[in-house]
Order: sequence, then C-alpha cells, then structure tokens
Amino acid sequence: MNGSAHKNDLAAAREDFYGRLKGRNISALWTVLHDLVTPQPRPEMAAAHWAYADVRRYLMEAGDLITAKEAERRALILENPAWPGESRITPTLYAAIQLVLPGDVAPAHRHTQSALRFVLEGSGAFTSVNGERTIMERGDFVITPSWTWHDHGNETDQPMIWLDGLDIPLVYFMNASFAEQGTEDRQALTKPENDAPARFGSGLLPVDYEAAAFSTSPVFNYPYARSRLVLEKLRAAGVVDPCHGIKQKYVHPGTGDFAMPTIATFLQLLPSGFASKPYRSTDSAVFVCVEGRGHSLIGDQRFDWGPNDLFVVPTWVPVTHHAEDDSVLFSYSDRGVQQKLGLWREDRMDEAHP
Amino acid sequence: MNGSAHKNDLAAAREDFYGRLKGRNISALWTVLHDLVTPQPRPEMAAAHWAYADVRRYLMEAGDLITAKEAERRALILENPAWPGESRITPTLYAAIQLVLPGDVAPAHRHTQSALRFVLEGSGAFTSVNGERTIMERGDFVITPSWTWHDHGNETDQPMIWLDGLDIPLVYFMNASFAEQGTEDRQALTKPENDAPARFGSGLLPVDYEAAAFSTSPVFNYPYARSRLVLEKLRAAGVVDPCHGIKQKYVHPGTGDFAMPTIATFLQLLPSGFASKPYRSTDSAVFVCVEGRGHSLIGDQRFDWGPNDLFVVPTWVPVTHHAEDDSVLFSYSDRGVQQKLGLWREDRMDEAHP
Amino acid sequence: MNGSAHKNDLAAAREDFYGRLKGRNISALWTVLHDLVTPQPRPEMAAAHWAYADVRRYLMEAGDLITAKEAERRALILENPAWPGESRITPTLYAAIQLVLPGDVAPAHRHTQSALRFVLEGSGAFTSVNGERTIMERGDFVITPSWTWHDHGNETDQPMIWLDGLDIPLVYFMNASFAEQGTEDRQALTKPENDAPARFGSGLLPVDYEAAAFSTSPVFNYPYARSRLVLEKLRAAGVVDPCHGIKQKYVHPGTGDFAMPTIATFLQLLPSGFASKPYRSTDSAVFVCVEGRGHSLIGDQRFDWGPNDLFVVPTWVPVTHHAEDDSVLFSYSDRGVQQKLGLWREDRMDEAHP
Amino acid sequence: MNGSAHKNDLAAAREDFYGRLKGRNISALWTVLHDLVTPQPRPEMAAAHWAYADVRRYLMEAGDLITAKEAERRALILENPAWPGESRITPTLYAAIQLVLPGDVAPAHRHTQSALRFVLEGSGAFTSVNGERTIMERGDFVITPSWTWHDHGNETDQPMIWLDGLDIPLVYFMNASFAEQGTEDRQALTKPENDAPARFGSGLLPVDYEAAAFSTSPVFNYPYARSRLVLEKLRAAGVVDPCHGIKQKYVHPGTGDFAMPTIATFLQLLPSGFASKPYRSTDSAVFVCVEGRGHSLIGDQRFDWGPNDLFVVPTWVPVTHHAEDDSVLFSYSDRGVQQKLGLWREDRMDEAHP
Repeated sequence: MNGSAHKNDLAAAREDFYGRLKGRNISALWTVLHDLVTPQPRPEMAAAHWAYADVRRYLMEAGDLITAKEAERRALILENPAWPGESRITPTLYAAIQLVLPGDVAPAHRHTQSALRFVLEGSGAFTSVNGERTIMERGDFVITPSWTWHDHGNETDQPMIWLDGLDIPLVYFMNASFAEQGTEDRQALTKPENDAPARFGSGLLPVDYEAAAFSTSPVFNYPYARSRLVLEKLRAAGVVDPCHGIKQKYVHPGTGDFAMPTIATFLQLLPSGFASKPYRSTDSAVFVCVEGRGHSLIGDQRFDWGPNDLFVVPTWVPVTHHAEDDSVLFSYSDRGVQQKLGLWREDRMDEAHP
Repeated sequence: MNGSAHKNDLAAAREDFYGRLKGRNISALWTVLHDLVTPQPRPEMAAAHWAYADVRRYLMEAGDLITAKEAERRALILENPAWPGESRITPTLYAAIQLVLPGDVAPAHRHTQSALRFVLEGSGAFTSVNGERTIMERGDFVITPSWTWHDHGNETDQPMIWLDGLDIPLVYFMNASFAEQGTEDRQALTKPENDAPARFGSGLLPVDYEAAAFSTSPVFNYPYARSRLVLEKLRAAGVVDPCHGIKQKYVHPGTGDFAMPTIATFLQLLPSGFASKPYRSTDSAVFVCVEGRGHSLIGDQRFDWGPNDLFVVPTWVPVTHHAEDDSVLFSYSDRGVQQKLGLWREDRMDEAHP
Repeated sequence: MNGSAHKNDLAAAREDFYGRLKGRNISALWTVLHDLVTPQPRPEMAAAHWAYADVRRYLMEAGDLITAKEAERRALILENPAWPGESRITPTLYAAIQLVLPGDVAPAHRHTQSALRFVLEGSGAFTSVNGERTIMERGDFVITPSWTWHDHGNETDQPMIWLDGLDIPLVYFMNASFAEQGTEDRQALTKPENDAPARFGSGLLPVDYEAAAFSTSPVFNYPYARSRLVLEKLRAAGVVDPCHGIKQKYVHPGTGDFAMPTIATFLQLLPSGFASKPYRSTDSAVFVCVEGRGHSLIGDQRFDWGPNDLFVVPTWVPVTHHAEDDSVLFSYSDRGVQQKLGLWREDRMDEAHP
Repeated sequence: MNGSAHKNDLAAAREDFYGRLKGRNISALWTVLHDLVTPQPRPEMAAAHWAYADVRRYLMEAGDLITAKEAERRALILENPAWPGESRITPTLYAAIQLVLPGDVAPAHRHTQSALRFVLEGSGAFTSVNGERTIMERGDFVITPSWTWHDHGNETDQPMIWLDGLDIPLVYFMNASFAEQGTEDRQALTKPENDAPARFGSGLLPVDYEAAAFSTSPVFNYPYARSRLVLEKLRAAGVVDPCHGIKQKYVHPGTGDFAMPTIATFLQLLPSGFASKPYRSTDSAVFVCVEGRGHSLIGDQRFDWGPNDLFVVPTWVPVTHHAEDDSVLFSYSDRGVQQKLGLWREDRMDEAHP
C-alpha cells in the first residue's frame, strides 16, 4: 500500500473512531486541544459602548410598560455583542441599568449573587441592607452583599437610575445560585442610617471585630462626595500612572482586599488632556463615565464618552483613554477573582519586557 | 377601553418594545430574571459513570490511530452528558484519560491551566516539572502547576494510563488562557529526583521559604503509598465521618490551603460495609475508584463502581456511597474556588437544620 | 539513720549541689519553677495615675532647663511605680509627655521602635514622616513607624504637648534596637500634606497596593475630629458594650489589623452616667482622658480623672470605668502582640463562664 | 553672670529638678534616651557553651537528690552568663536539660508557656498531649503547645534525657502566665498513637480542617529519622547555603508558619569540611549538636562541639560554623516572634550591602 492510500485509510479509521465515541460521553482531545488551551485569550468577546441618552430613553419607556413590583427589578440588561441572550457583558459579570420611579416598590429578596449599584441619576432614594438604610446620591457605590436581604425604594418625586453590576454569569457558570423572596416589601430597620460607615469606614473598627476570610465589606455605601475628594487630593500629589491616571480601588476595611470577593471596583481620575499609555489585562472591565468627556481606543475601535455613557473593554485587548476634560471613570471587573485563582495578568505595553 | 383590551395592548406594546431592543445589545431583565438568579442550582447538569474497561478499550484503539507526538497529548475527554462537545465534566473542570505508550514523546509545553494527573495503570513513567523529574506509580497524585514547563515520557515497556484533571472550562470561561510550545521534547533537568518532596513535603521547609499567596504546592507528587497509609492509620483512630468515611484533602505545605488554587483534591477510605448518609454541596466532583468495589446513589440514579471506574456527582444533588469491600476514592472539585469566592455550601441532609 | 537525719542530710546534699552549680551557668528548675510559671499573672505591676496639672508643671520647668535640640526629645517619662528607673509603664510599653516649644528643633532620626503621638495641648505643630508632613491638633493620633525618618517642629506661637507611646521595653527586651541620627534637622518633603489620608484612609487604596504582612498603617495621622464623630454616630445606634462603652480600635486600612504591629490603640466613649461592668485582660493598658470627667476602679484603688489625666491598668486586674460627664478615653496596649503570639486572654467577669 | 557660672547654675537646677521628679513616677527622657534606643543591639548578652558530659553528670546527681514527682519536672536550667538567676538563655527563651528516670512520674499540668522537647539520650519514653501519646527517640522534636494538658513517663529501663525549650522569659515579660495542675498523674488517652502525624503530617489534612490563626502545629512529634532523611536528600541536590549549610525550618502543616507561634525551630546539616560565611541576626539562638563534631566562632570566642553539646549565639553577633565531620545542629530562636512584630533583621556579612 502506498503512503497516500495509507493516509486515506488512517483518516477514515479516525473518523470511524470519532463516530463510535459519539453518544458515549467521550471525545478525542487532539481534535479540540488548541481550542481549549489557546495561546492567548480568545478574541471573540467584543468591545461595546452604550450612550446613556439611548439607554435612558428605553428605560423611561419601560417605566410606562411595567411596574417595579411586577418586574421585581425594572432594569435593562447591557449585553456583550458577542453573546446575545446570555445576559453578560464580560465573561463573569452582568450589567444593567435600573429605573426606580417615585413610589416604586421593589420587594425584599436575597441571593448568592453579589451586587453593586452605581448611581447615575437622581438623589435621595434608599437601599436597605441587613436592617440598615442608606440614602443614595449620584456617583455613590453601594453594595448588596451575597445572601443578604435587600430592598430599595424611592420616596422622592424624581426618578432614580443606577447601574447594577452583578456576578450573575460567574455564579451561573459555577451552578451555585440560591435565591429567596421575602414576605415583606420592606425589611425591618434595626440600625440607624449611616451606622456602617461610622462603625467600619473611618479608620476605626469595633474593638473585637475580626473580618471573615473572603467576606464582603461591611461598609455598603461608598459615597461619591468622599471618593471624588480623594482623587482631587491625589492629583495634588502629582503622581499620575501612565496607564491609569489616578486610580484607586474600593476596599474592605477589615481585610484591605477588594470590597467584594467576586467583583473588583475602581474609581479613576483622568486629568484634562491626559492620554494613557496602552495597557491590557486578563480581567475585562465595565466602565462608566461619571464626569467629563473623552474617548477610549479599544483595539482598533474608538468610543467617545460623556457623563453616564458606558463601555466594556475585553480581555487582553489594548486600551488607551483620552480625556478632553477632567474625567472620572468608575469601573468593575473580575480582577479579584483572577488574582485569587492565580490567573490574573497585566501588560503595560510601552514598558520594556524583561 | 376595558381591562382585557388594555391588557392586550400592554402585551403588544411590550413585545414591540422587546423587538426594538434587539440588535442594540440591550434586553429586559424581567423576562429572564428567574433563569439568571435561580432559587437552587440548576438541575440540567447530569450524573454520569464511565466503566474503565470501556474507556481503556477506546484508548488502546487511539494508541493505534495517533502518535503521542502528533496528538501532543493522547487522551480521551470524558464529557458531561448535559454538555456534549463542551469538553467539561463539571461546570469548571475537565477530565480525560491519557495513554502513554512505551517510547512516546509528549513535547514540553506550558499553559495557564493547572493540571493534575492521577495514575490508573502502569508504573515507572515520568513527569518533569520545573527541571525536576518524578517517577509515577499507580495512585500517585501529580501536579503540573499553572505556567510551568512540563513534559512526560514512558521509558518502560508497558503502557501508562492516567486521569488528567484540569481547570480548562474555568480558564476558558474567564478567557484567561495562555499557552506556549517548548522547542525541546524534553526539558533540561536541573534538580535530582525527589528533591521537592524532601525540600517541602516532610514537615520541614527551607529556612527562608515563604509561599506566595494563592500559589500551587511545590510538592508535585503525592505518592499513593504514603497517602494510602494515612487512611489506614486514621481508620485505627475510629473516627469515620457519616457522610465522607475517612476523607482527607491534599494540601500545600506552605499555606495549608488546597494543593492547587483552582482544583481541590481528596482521598477517602470507605470501610467495607460502610454506607454514607446523604450529602450535597455546591461543588460538583469527579470521583475515581482506586481500590474496592461498591456503588453510589446520585439523586435517583445508581452507579456501580470498581477499580478505575469514574463517575461525576452534580452540584447540589444528594449522594450516598456504599462500599462492598474496603474502598478508596480519589476525587477533585472546585470547592477551593467556591470557598475563596464566598459561594460554597454543603448540606449534611440527615442532620437537623437550625 | 532515722527519717529526720536523712532529711537533714538530703537538704544539706541539695544545698551543696546548688552551690556547686553556681558559676557554671546552671541552676535547678525545681527551686524556681513556680516563680517562672505562675498560675496567674504576677501582681507586682502597679496601677498608677498622673494628674495632667502636675506633669505639665514639671514639663514647663523642663522647657526652661533644656533645649529640644540638646534633649533630642524634651519629654518626661511616666514610670510604672513597680519598676522605678526602667522607663516602662506596662511590661512592654513606654509612655512620656513631650513638650515642643515655639521654634524648637527636634533633629530627624529613625529607630526600630514604633512610636505614637497623642496630642494633649496646642494646635498646628507638625510631624514629618517619610517625606510627608502632617499638622497636628488636640486628640490626633499620629504614628511614626518603625525605621522611618521622622522629625517635628512647632512654628506656632504656643507650646504643643503630646503623649508619646513607644514599644521601647519590648524592643529592649528582644534586644533588637537599631537607631540612626539624621544629618539634617528637617527631612526633605516629597509629598503634599494630607497625601496619606487621601491615598489610604478613605475607603480606597491605590490600584496596585498590597500591604506587607505585619506592616504599619500608611495613614500616619488619625485626626480626632474624624474619630470623635464616629463615636458620636455610634452612640446614636445605641449599642453600648457593658465593659467598654463604645470602643473602637484604630486599624491599618490595608490589612484590617491594628494600625501598628506592636502597639494596639483604641478610642472609647463613655456616655454620661455610664458605669462599666468589671473586666480584665492580659494586656495592660495606658489610658488618657481626652474629654469628660469620671473615675476608674482598678482592683481596690480609685483614680479620678479629667482632661489629659493619665492612668495605667495592670495585667489581669479588674477594672471598671465611671463617667460623670460624656467622656472619651484614648488607650494603648500590647493586645495585638499578645494575640499574634497566642497569649491574649480577657475576662468579662460578670458573665457566666462556661 | 559669666558663662561658666551660668553653666554651673544650670547643672545645679537640673539636678534639683531630677531630684524632685523622684518618687513621682516621672523621669527625664534625655538622661536615658541613648540607653533605651540604642544604635545596635546591646552587647551584654553573652555567648556560652555547655559540654554535655558536664551537664549530664550534674543531672544524674540530681536524679539521686530529688524525685520527678517532688520536682514536678527534674531539670537543670541553662542560664545565660549575662543574666544569672533569671532562668533565661536568650532574651525571650529558656533552656533546660531534663532527666526522666525509669518509673518517674511527672504529673499532668498545663500552662500558657509553649514548650519543645528535643531528645538527647534514651529511647522509648513517652509524652502525652491532648489525649494522644507519642513515643520518643533521640533527635525527635516534640511540642507541648500552650495551654494543653501534658504529661510524660518512662516505662523503659534506661534514663531519658532531653532539652526543654520554652518561651518562659517572653511570657513572664508580658506578664501573661497561667498554669494549672492536673488531678491525675496521667491524662486519659483518647486517640491511638501516631494519630496526629497521620492526620496532619503527611501532605494531607482532614477534609474540613482549617487552622486557627497563630496556632501551634497539630503534629506534635517531628521524628528525627524522618527529618534527618530530608537533610540527606537535600545534600544530593547540592544546594548549600553559604551561611547555613542545608537548613530547614519545622512548620505547621495547616499554615506553613513556624510549628510554634513563639519559638522557631530549625534543623541543619553542615557537610564535613564546610565552613560557613559570617552571619548575624536579631534573633539569638540556642544550638544543640545532634551529630558530628566541629566548632563555631561567635564574635571572637571559639566553642568546640560534639554530640549533645549546647551553645547559644547572642543577638547580632557574627557567627561562623565549621564542621569537621558531617554535622547536624538543631536550633531554636524567637525569629517567628520578631518577624510577626516587624523587628527581625539578618545580615549576610560577606555579601555586598546595597
């Protein structure tokens, strides 16, 4: 038999073999290996941008079409273009914009998914967590931790709109979702307002407090007024990172770790005229512009942004930010998860690589 | 307009609204909320069982059809029946059975995926990691850590077969895969055999050694002879857990954490006649029978097992184990990952719940 | 030989034996065992009290007798009455009151001893640490960490007086003291004022910051205005500990541990009329009254206190505090050291002991 | 008034001032500052050496003079020559040599002091800790952790002699000593022999075990046979530290930290002919020669050593070791304590200092 015939025979034998594996829950590694273990993160995840004006228009329309009670949470999901219908904006994270109208009732519930709120519009609505209520203002970063009862309401006369960030895809992927509906629309309040920030958020902790490992920050509202002031003071120090501008992470005061075990959150100031050096990392991140105006180059795409616009940066795609005015970006990603699993990498692309 | 007409109008308006969201990377949360945040882990993941005799027959056939060099790794993937073609046996983990024939060459490579080997058959083949070679025997648990060069070979005259356990689905999900092919079939050896177990594995550590946070155990072979002896000694102590029998976890000697950051590994002894109490947890696990004979009830399915048979227990499905002879089970799961993310739960179902 | 004669012989033989051991650096354990390993902490350490008016009078006299430059630090040491000449107020800690007159120069130096300052009187003098200056007000808690250059000065027209707390006896005991004199009276300033509190002290940390294990807080001034407000807010929550009133610990924002590895620091509010339940612990503590008026019962001694008065509570002696007005106490102890060494115990004496 | 008269007046005024401070528990810092905060560790602590033959002779004499029951523990304390009568060999540690004769009864007790035993002579006596007994052989390192009941006995027909290492001076200094006498000479045994090494000491841990922070190793006997083998295997790897030879630390398998929170322990091999480079550190250490013959230069003193000889190296004094034969040294120090407090330093004196 000549080589070519042999080759044909072998190919046929292999095909026959693969066919017989079917239905036995077995497959041949070598037919898929290089799709499973790729030399670099896969490129299919997409960068994307949502103009706030668009999202807001749809959201207001939703306000006419469904009640908060009926919807349980009246929110529009931002989906990564690469994964329509999958309710995820990055591999592990979910983003949605929620509208809370005056008088809305969002029944108390709890779930293993961790959630953050970042307030885009409005002033004075409240979130209650574990028996304590916090009043929210624009730019506030609010946490409803895993498996804690939470509800919210709007007793003002203006709509309130916020960004919801959750680890829904991560928990879904791990198949570790639990949820419960409360029997009350409002949980009973057992602590005064602003108890948590006083107790845990001012450089002091209760005398016998020890944080549990891998826990969520007991401070569940990081007000924008305070965080914004930090950025302004650090600008005075003149230390501007070439890739990040002035970038801080929100932390758990009892551990120094990220404020949430599954979602890392950041606030950064890009001074007017600042153009960042190219940077990429394995955590893909959701950004929202809080103040200012500018654009970001993500791979070869340009996204212009102004207040409340959102965009998402994929894994390992080079990004640069360009600020026309003094700009503040809030962002969240799974950097904390990847660091705990030994998977996180970053690349400051203009620096020499050893 | 009467109520029914209004209702129809509203339904139509909503459908129109959903239609207009399409193509804008936006969707309405309330149409999917209860699929995203489920009250309990989803039931679609399946229990399954693979008889070693079957797998081995296919594997030997593969040995005729493809060389190790051509295949890079000659292995058959065990796929969860719920996810055909996805190369995963649990949500986060991969399992395959690898055949290494005498003289096989498996070129050196490295990748961010962490891998374990659990030897099912054969004696004397080697794995090299970071310049050190270890000889493998049946029952040995061997690690090739994330981003370390590794290769293996079989210089004996018998085939060697092992179980490969990797975190491929987890790394794929996080889109954090990196891989490199080596230029050599064999990496250079820079340390004597058994250096690591001496240096790190005997109750002592190098005087100035500090383990990095979230690192992998520097001991990369946990020999079966030693681990099996532990189980036998603990049997003498008479402490048998009603759900687990005598169950130990493999640990990193420099941290006390699981030996690998992304894969938790266990070895357990079920004394002859032992029947476990029902148990469920959010980490689904892959089991392989090392010794003995028995069966497990997983939900309402019964799987009989003997040496080298494998089975997988889904998330949150009650399981009991029943040993006919003294039996040893090796298992691996993502318990460590879930614990670091605050997601892990277990339920000893016969105990009163407070 | 009868028993009594034998006994005399034995006693003589033992004395002879002990005599022969002398000079050989050997002694017999059984002659000292119960002094070495006591059933309870030894009672010889004394409670004591220093009226601020007295200390201040001596301090002002010292201001006439020696320059700051000549003294290096113009301070009066508070010594535990049990250990005259040993410069310690508790087993491990040192306390002194320092006077800084307008125009004083305290040359820069550094040492392995950690130091805290708690401001008793004056406003506007500065401390510089690691290239950053902080302006101090009454009640501020300021840290000069181990082995950091520090200097201070008073460019106001009023004297400044503070409490110095150091771990001098601990470092002396461990024989681990290192010190260096700077060549300049003032270190160069490389950061703007209030950089550290912004960068580290407001719920945010620099994006890539990781605290070193067992490090000192990078926030080196915890202003009284802020800490006092915390206590007031917590009073609103109505949670008053029966032994402590409302008591918070100062913490390192990057670890959640005490702000200093060797000195634990606390601030507590005793509402007017509050009388604490008896309490004792193995860390003995130095207290200073910041506001209010009251007395403490330490064992069977009563000490009345008002603003800037100081007292020390010995190890394991029961203490109760009684506030006539709303009172604030600052305190420091070696609780953090004892906890890291597995030695710390406390006893809430009115609670049932299991 | 001329300068000289003024100077005399000032000196007199100061003396008067110091005199008036006396009896008020106040002293002037500037009169003692440079004794408190020294530029380097103080030199008064002494190096010393004890020939085993001498100690053994006295110990046997003690065996005639006092029963174990009467003595509670029949041991001779090795005292640092700088501190006669203080029962300490280093600033924080105690050393004694204990004799246990056949039939001796050492009543069960417990205390907050942590203790180690390192067996010098004999075979087969036992120590019981927490309901488990371990049989001891020469070279074994055995722990009786803080506040655990322990007793021991010798049911062989030969005397047993071991080195006792405790943190008595440290606990005494912190005034945190608690002790209790048991009512029984022997505690009840609740676990089989060798349960702990199996359960915790072989690369595996119980499935749900989590070590408490700052706890003591649950493995309470580290047999010499096993540790010695480690050193021999590492010699094969050829990695010999210029200052330490081949030096390993004993560790807690659940944390990777030193086996005891207050006492760090080490075992090192000095190959025949090895001469170490000069080294100093802030932890002073007690050494015992287990095997071999050689000498150490400590500062400018030379100490020759052979089996069971002991010597102590003071803080920050340069030391070199010189092995005539293959030599093994066991040592213990407070390195772990100093590291947790941020005080530990070392100096490899032949290396360039940056």
